[in-house]
Amino acid sequence: MYKYDKELNVSYSFGSTLTIELLKNHPQEVKKIYFSPELLDNESNQLITKLCLDQNIEIIVSGKIFKNLKAKDNCFVIGEFSKYKSNITNDNHIVLVNPENDGNLGTIMRSALGFGFKNIIIIKPAIDYFNPKVIRSSMGAIFSLNITYYDSFEEYNKEFPNHHYYSFMLNGNSKLKDKQFIYPCSLVFGPESSGLKEKYLNLNDSIVISHDKSIDSLNLPIAVSIALYEVTKNIY
Amino acid sequence: MYKYDKELNVSYSFGSTLTIELLKNHPQEVKKIYFSPELLDNESNQLITKLCLDQNIEIIVSGKIFKNLKAKDNCFVIGEFSKYKSNITNDNHIVLVNPENDGNLGTIMRSALGFGFKNIIIIKPAIDYFNPKVIRSSMGAIFSLNITYYDSFEEYNKEFPNHHYYSFMLNGNSKLKDKQFIYPCSLVFGPESSGLKEKYLNLNDSIVISHDKSIDSLNLPIAVSIALYEVTKNIY
Repeated sequence: MYKYDKELNVSYSFGSTLTIELLKNHPQEVKKIYFSPELLDNESNQLITKLCLDQNIEIIVSGKIFKNLKAKDNCFVIGEFSKYKSNITNDNHIVLVNPENDGNLGTIMRSALGFGFKNIIIIKPAIDYFNPKVIRSSMGAIFSLNITYYDSFEEYNKEFPNHHYYSFMLNGNSKLKDKQFIYPCSLVFGPESSGLKEKYLNLNDSIVISHDKSIDSLNLPIAVSIALYEVTKNIY
Repeated sequence: MYKYDKELNVSYSFGSTLTIELLKNHPQEVKKIYFSPELLDNESNQLITKLCLDQNIEIIVSGKIFKNLKAKDNCFVIGEFSKYKSNITNDNHIVLVNPENDGNLGTIMRSALGFGFKNIIIIKPAIDYFNPKVIRSSMGAIFSLNITYYDSFEEYNKEFPNHHYYSFMLNGNSKLKDKQFIYPCSLVFGPESSGLKEKYLNLNDSIVISHDKSIDSLNLPIAVSIALYEVTKNIY
């Protein structure tokens, strides 16, 4: 699915929904919008045309790029944009240590936006968050978030000394449901295959989302989303 | 991915982990176990061999079926089993009305098992829950659950008159966090693309998982899992 090269400095939004989010949130980064010759004249596509006109963004009608980039058969709009850097704010953070799965990362972005966590920190080594598969799974949420890589947790940790750090681990010291949170907080999660290493038990607090013994662990986006729900339940 | 025909009365577990869950939970339904000639002699595969010997299940060593069924390159074990019916118990239920996505259904199964909800009701039209993609996403949880189809919600509803029915809807009457649950309960969720229709507001209770307006809705497995977490938080 999708031809894309992480070494290049451009990525793509496939489909109308994602492209509208791209145009609304990062118009300066958009290089070109591609319309398929089979594009329908519907409300979404009129909006895309209007946004492009307003921002002086070029629209190219061509079937070729849809084949070249291996777009799905039901995709008639592609947005090409320059990968951009975003500024992390001193608000609450989600910290993903070494995430491994594109679909999971996108799903986490959608939940993060849904519960008002606008900052996502990714500790390397990690997958490429501008991969079109991540963008698709995020349903466009990626364009409303601040996301950045750090080379190590320690480097990140030093930059935000005022945050209260919570590590989510199967052997965490407190149950999520019993926890009172201190803000601004950093909710820290490990990779899909192995979770956080033991050293993360030494952050300010470690938390377990307790569940039945019949499964080893919850799926990562599920765990992050349950945590976000609990942390923000007095707001929403 | 995976060659499989929903019209046939067999399905497949791809990989050691899923096949062990199959052999432990439904040995009577297993027709054959296939080992790739490249199979490693590790602990998982010794366990599979032992389970097969104990249950008198035939093991066939052949590379051909891995190609024919389009197994992934890192898959060296396939379990072939007869699709079976399971008996729904009068305990708590998850009810999925017209689910559309294989990966989501499997993820929901894993969370269901993780929070002790052993019964999943699927209202048709719906995807095929024995599709190998569902089995894979469930990480084997499917083999520990009771799952059944009903042709309509009404038909299901009539069979379990003692259940308290909760519909999860964007315009639900109560917030999840404020709800006291009555058991046995049926937690009812709509399809990914459109959610539950308005008539479901008339069940015993309707519930919203409230979130920020910047996303339309939560991803379905996320919504189901947050509900399961809240409903069972006094147990785990």
